[in-house]
Amino acid sequence: MTDPKLDRLKTLVGEVDDLRKASTILFWDQRVMMPPGGAQARAEASATVGRLAHEKFVAPEIGELLDGLNEADYEYDSFEASLIRVTRRDYEKAMRVPPELTGEMRRSSALALSAWGPAKQNSDFQSLLPHLERNLDLRHRYVECFPKPDETYDVLLDDYEPLMKTAEVREIFDELKRELVPLIQEIGDAGEVDSSFLRGEFDREQQREFALKVVRRFGYTDDEWRLDQTAHPFMTSPGEGDIRLTTNFRPNDLSSIFASMHEFGHGVYEWGVDASLRRTPLGSGVSLAVHESQSRSWENLVGRSRAFWRFFYPQLQQTFPAQLGSVDDEAFYRAVNKVHPSLIRIDADEVTYNLHIILRFELEQELIDSRLEPRDLPQAWNERMDEYLGIDVPDDARGVLQDMHWAGGSLGYFPTYSLGNVISVQIWARLQEDLGDIDEQMERGEFGEIREWLRTHLYVLGRKFTPQETIERVTGSRIDPGPYVRYLREKLAPQPA
Amino acid sequence: MTDPKLDRLKTLVGEVDDLRKASTILFWDQRVMMPPGGAQARAEASATVGRLAHEKFVAPEIGELLDGLNEADYEYDSFEASLIRVTRRDYEKAMRVPPELTGEMRRSSALALSAWGPAKQNSDFQSLLPHLERNLDLRHRYVECFPKPDETYDVLLDDYEPLMKTAEVREIFDELKRELVPLIQEIGDAGEVDSSFLRGEFDREQQREFALKVVRRFGYTDDEWRLDQTAHPFMTSPGEGDIRLTTNFRPNDLSSIFASMHEFGHGVYEWGVDASLRRTPLGSGVSLAVHESQSRSWENLVGRSRAFWRFFYPQLQQTFPAQLGSVDDEAFYRAVNKVHPSLIRIDADEVTYNLHIILRFELEQELIDSRLEPRDLPQAWNERMDEYLGIDVPDDARGVLQDMHWAGGSLGYFPTYSLGNVISVQIWARLQEDLGDIDEQMERGEFGEIREWLRTHLYVLGRKFTPQETIERVTGSRIDPGPYVRYLREKLAPQPA
Repeated sequence: MTDPKLDRLKTLVGEVDDLRKASTILFWDQRVMMPPGGAQARAEASATVGRLAHEKFVAPEIGELLDGLNEADYEYDSFEASLIRVTRRDYEKAMRVPPELTGEMRRSSALALSAWGPAKQNSDFQSLLPHLERNLDLRHRYVECFPKPDETYDVLLDDYEPLMKTAEVREIFDELKRELVPLIQEIGDAGEVDSSFLRGEFDREQQREFALKVVRRFGYTDDEWRLDQTAHPFMTSPGEGDIRLTTNFRPNDLSSIFASMHEFGHGVYEWGVDASLRRTPLGSGVSLAVHESQSRSWENLVGRSRAFWRFFYPQLQQTFPAQLGSVDDEAFYRAVNKVHPSLIRIDADEVTYNLHIILRFELEQELIDSRLEPRDLPQAWNERMDEYLGIDVPDDARGVLQDMHWAGGSLGYFPTYSLGNVISVQIWARLQEDLGDIDEQMERGEFGEIREWLRTHLYVLGRKFTPQETIERVTGSRIDPGPYVRYLREKLAPQPA
Repeated sequence: MTDPKLDRLKTLVGEVDDLRKASTILFWDQRVMMPPGGAQARAEASATVGRLAHEKFVAPEIGELLDGLNEADYEYDSFEASLIRVTRRDYEKAMRVPPELTGEMRRSSALALSAWGPAKQNSDFQSLLPHLERNLDLRHRYVECFPKPDETYDVLLDDYEPLMKTAEVREIFDELKRELVPLIQEIGDAGEVDSSFLRGEFDREQQREFALKVVRRFGYTDDEWRLDQTAHPFMTSPGEGDIRLTTNFRPNDLSSIFASMHEFGHGVYEWGVDASLRRTPLGSGVSLAVHESQSRSWENLVGRSRAFWRFFYPQLQQTFPAQLGSVDDEAFYRAVNKVHPSLIRIDADEVTYNLHIILRFELEQELIDSRLEPRDLPQAWNERMDEYLGIDVPDDARGVLQDMHWAGGSLGYFPTYSLGNVISVQIWARLQEDLGDIDEQMERGEFGEIREWLRTHLYVLGRKFTPQETIERVTGSRIDPGPYVRYLREKLAPQPA
């Protein structure tokens, strides 16, 4: 009954998937476990495994199998049709980029990333500039591998948010800007919230234990998950049933708790992909924005809610009595939801975060359209920080050098963060319609029904459909910033006295 | 000047080496870090990477390059001649075994290993028997892939100790048996040494700190090494400058200290291979026996010496004052060197250990020569334990089921342990001739000169020469049990009153 061509395709993409898993473990180990002396050998091993995964995927045999298979022979929703459709799209994209260019981009970004650390350390933009120029040149060559798009930036965006158009993002972000700039103003006018008790000495081992207590309630088990310490938090899954979170347990604040919930959100999405999609190109989250919607759901919609803290705050107080013993739960809730313009994206609150993103999105378009030269980035950055957030940037370390993305060659990645925020609330609204009063569950420390709703409605789908199709299937509508803006206003706008 | 064929060969074997490093990390991670839920995906990824490494190595292009290269064009000792010679031998061996058989052996041993755990747990030999029979059948098919050897067992031995013949091992082991059985008798007659204080409660974190203190003195640095906890200690090196030791910090004894020194010995051998041999088939230790000679040197010749403990024992006493405060250094030295026949190989002392090995070596030959049926293994095991060690085996868990090797399909591996003991003392004798009074250095906690001697005389050679050539270059003579027997007698025979 099954087409032998389809079986063969599954075998071949399964091998590619195995190699990608090997790459994932090489990456995780390098960040979390490897002694520094192993760096060179690891770079060689990673390059070879990555190259082989690519070579195996663009093999002529896969092209021939795809030529002989027709997704229209199967129901659109079926595994078979999705596998052919998604593999075909991945294959056609991969075939367009010559391996030499891929290699050059990889080398250039590796060099630039090595330069980025010291450049940020010394707030020395000039030392990074040649690398940024080189990365941008290569991105221009990359764009030329594809058919002429409506806007050049479309090609970059497509790598992170497949089929999303720049014009769509611009429309969404323009609405965010229009709504959020005045909201920030209103909140600022209402006076500053005290969050001083969130800084102090917090034992790292106790932070870790508390973070584990939280994510265990969400669904983390020792059988399928790990949580480790790294400088930069991330999630990776080197195989089904093997979800790895990392976070930075900073000694002087509680950010690790929110970072852990954030990474849990990424992890639980991968964890929940349907078993039938494993070891195929369908077996992971559908796009960065939808991924981010889940990390933001668990970090913000759950983890910064009153209901969540009603359950967990007494335990947190017990863990850190010296720092929090005299702080009541409402004061703590307000502090972890404090809206205040600041310099650093990754430390920004739920509202101003989006303006950090919009600024980057705009600068990226100007760079790829050659309306802005890389050497003029610091000035453009600083002007826009003043315009959007009323903030004076004291140095490039806390300005244009703060993120590694551009050094890494990633142009088009940033917008997915804010798109994720937007999507998270759309999905949450549907979840609340189905589940009713979820606050009551969270107040009891119960998150199983929430997780199961998300799993059965979203996570199981993996990459079977496009991101936009996926969002429509889950929420019933296209991506729409309305619910997100209303959520922010309801939660965070100053209450009339 | 360089032959482009040689450059191409280096490129190709470099890629194979990268894949083997990836395999190594997949293995280490599985044993040390992976949540159990990741097992299936990991098995698939490991199989694919392992298969690709094999396919890349037996690629026709490598055969053609080897056909066009002649080691005689270069000095025997040169990198070039060694690379061609060793790659040719590896290639010719690899080409003889059909991939289907390799695959079947891998699957069979994976299944047998899964069955071994419960079988040992329940002391249920019958449940493992069909797996052992299947493994043995496959080994017979494996042997048939090679030209008819003098003895069938030669083919098995060659995988672990290249070019070593069964007859040579038998001669060495016969001498060991002749010398050691009466030595054990003499020691037994002299009365039992008190070692009761070696059992008790020993905090695992303190064991770890002490073990680290020791191996740091030997040359372990955080820049290039790790030490982790596992049920079964092992060493692996997933890349140059990346040496990973594991050990089992048991809560009730101090075996972890000796196990850590043992694994350090394996690690420092890999660590010391000359940089010029990296990323080629020459870039690792030459054989299992020579490897074991180094783990045994650091565990026994260093770690069970009076001089070593003169330096470390006061620190160990401070670490565990309740257990060791009233035990003097001579009593401790005698306890950690206590010779006493016992059931379990991995816990055996320096002398009786070899009889555990000889027993296995003899049974393995009988199995592969079909003089012994797998179903008769328990009886044969128990009879020989009585004959060689005067020990009554109470159950198969503590008898024939204690080791995983046979379940894993490894026949021919065991003899390398005792060969390693023999070689270790031969090398040590040469080292002492060169360095003079090394006890004095060890008493001061200085091990750098010892390590450097071993590095420059042995470790740097990697796999450039055969094991026998390597031993001759280091010691000036062929493998010879004489020095080892004299060492054991001098160190451990009862002193005339």
